[in-house]
Amino acid sequence: MERRRRVDRLVALTHYLVEHPCQLVPLSKFADELGAAKSSLSEDVALIKRVLGELGEGFIETVPGAAGGVRYVPELKEDGAREVVLRLAAELSQEIRYLPGGFLYLTDLLFMPSLMESVGRIFATRFRELEPERVVTVETKGIPVALYTARALGVPAVIIRREGRVTEGPAVSINYLSGSTRRIQTMSLARRALPQGARVVLVDDFMRAGGTARGMMDLMAEFEATVLGTGMLVALKEPETKLVSDYFSLLVLKEIPENGQGLVVQPATWLEGG
Amino acid sequence: MERRRRVDRLVALTHYLVEHPCQLVPLSKFADELGAAKSSLSEDVALIKRVLGELGEGFIETVPGAAGGVRYVPELKEDGAREVVLRLAAELSQEIRYLPGGFLYLTDLLFMPSLMESVGRIFATRFRELEPERVVTVETKGIPVALYTARALGVPAVIIRREGRVTEGPAVSINYLSGSTRRIQTMSLARRALPQGARVVLVDDFMRAGGTARGMMDLMAEFEATVLGTGMLVALKEPETKLVSDYFSLLVLKEIPENGQGLVVQPATWLEGG
Repeated sequence: MERRRRVDRLVALTHYLVEHPCQLVPLSKFADELGAAKSSLSEDVALIKRVLGELGEGFIETVPGAAGGVRYVPELKEDGAREVVLRLAAELSQEIRYLPGGFLYLTDLLFMPSLMESVGRIFATRFRELEPERVVTVETKGIPVALYTARALGVPAVIIRREGRVTEGPAVSINYLSGSTRRIQTMSLARRALPQGARVVLVDDFMRAGGTARGMMDLMAEFEATVLGTGMLVALKEPETKLVSDYFSLLVLKEIPENGQGLVVQPATWLEGG
Repeated sequence: MERRRRVDRLVALTHYLVEHPCQLVPLSKFADELGAAKSSLSEDVALIKRVLGELGEGFIETVPGAAGGVRYVPELKEDGAREVVLRLAAELSQEIRYLPGGFLYLTDLLFMPSLMESVGRIFATRFRELEPERVVTVETKGIPVALYTARALGVPAVIIRREGRVTEGPAVSINYLSGSTRRIQTMSLARRALPQGARVVLVDDFMRAGGTARGMMDLMAEFEATVLGTGMLVALKEPETKLVSDYFSLLVLKEIPENGQGLVVQPATWLEGG
């Protein structure tokens, strides 16, 4: 009977923690709900911590003290990250993904939640130690990257709009030169969408020359935000010198051939080795 | 030693299943990784199924046969759903959310992953038995609702664009009358973004007169899609007769007062009782 209760608790605890990533939960919550002493729960948490640590796709963090508790932190690194990125590279190298004008069709992959959850975990694993408070992107295709990176970091996402929208109150706008359309474009962010002086990371789905990323950085300066890092799902290899200097991508598109034949998308070099 | 291995397996299995919602996993995968016989794993799964069934925030489904396996299905219903919606109602009734022109500021909540994950589970719980193949919305603010509903249903999301974009190939466009701007607007969807004849549900963040929802339905007709249902996060009470007849919302905005004083957002009646 005692043993049976313990296995029940382990399943219930694992379920709750994994379903609420990055949320610090006081053990007292579980003490009430599962009818167990804190000392038993501490032992349960220690066991879960050990098992998840061995699996390597997320870990348990315990915070001592009266305001403490336990949280589950999702991760994806090394072999796990490489596997996802290699799968993406193979998918993206298909000729059918070539679009006239030198574009790559990514949208279907961006809106597959299970895939983007893995992508978000890879970004979060890389950004976590920088302690970002917000994940910022620009609409529309950057949104799933931002939402799932934010989920794995336990912070909100902030979405820059392509035009000022009447429905969000006072906003700050900037103009920038888009690399893909070679036109001056506008991006704007509502004042209330981002506190002044926040620590942010920038993400987006695709980088060509870096014009949009440069625009995001300029807009962040207007909010006195500290940009801790910039992550792209795919970056075009050429031009090697981008308009932003400090970024990384998961994938590199070697070039966009005229008709899509010989499209080559490769994992970025930082994911190699191991 | 035997006992200790069993608790390890239970934690590892629960973690994997909860981290991969709606994915059917063959037991043989775990047999290899956890070094356990299928008969032991079947007992483990039965225990996890019972415990999660008692918690009521998701359930385990087992599919027999050679192509079978086990999957975790996230849910949120009754008390759990009411708690989330009541919290949202209180937050949205704050005067500070009123925006000039009669708009409600929702954006910060839409891009909080933990909150939208709960919202997506409520929608998915209501839509699941209709067996949708895609969750469709229109950019931008509908995207988190769609992504998290899609996650909990285990299907992709499909995002209608406000304008034709050069980067997605041939597209179908329609014009519609937006209730909020009282202007003719365009929405379009790339041909390759949605297979012909799919079973879809529509979601969005806010419904006024239903013009945008009507537009989405018209666009779905061009793809010969079957629209199984329409879900809104918030619907304005007036006009009671919308441009679409069959929809539900989680929240109802009674009216938008001139200056925001006395803003009242309530849970929809179908969430009451229990």
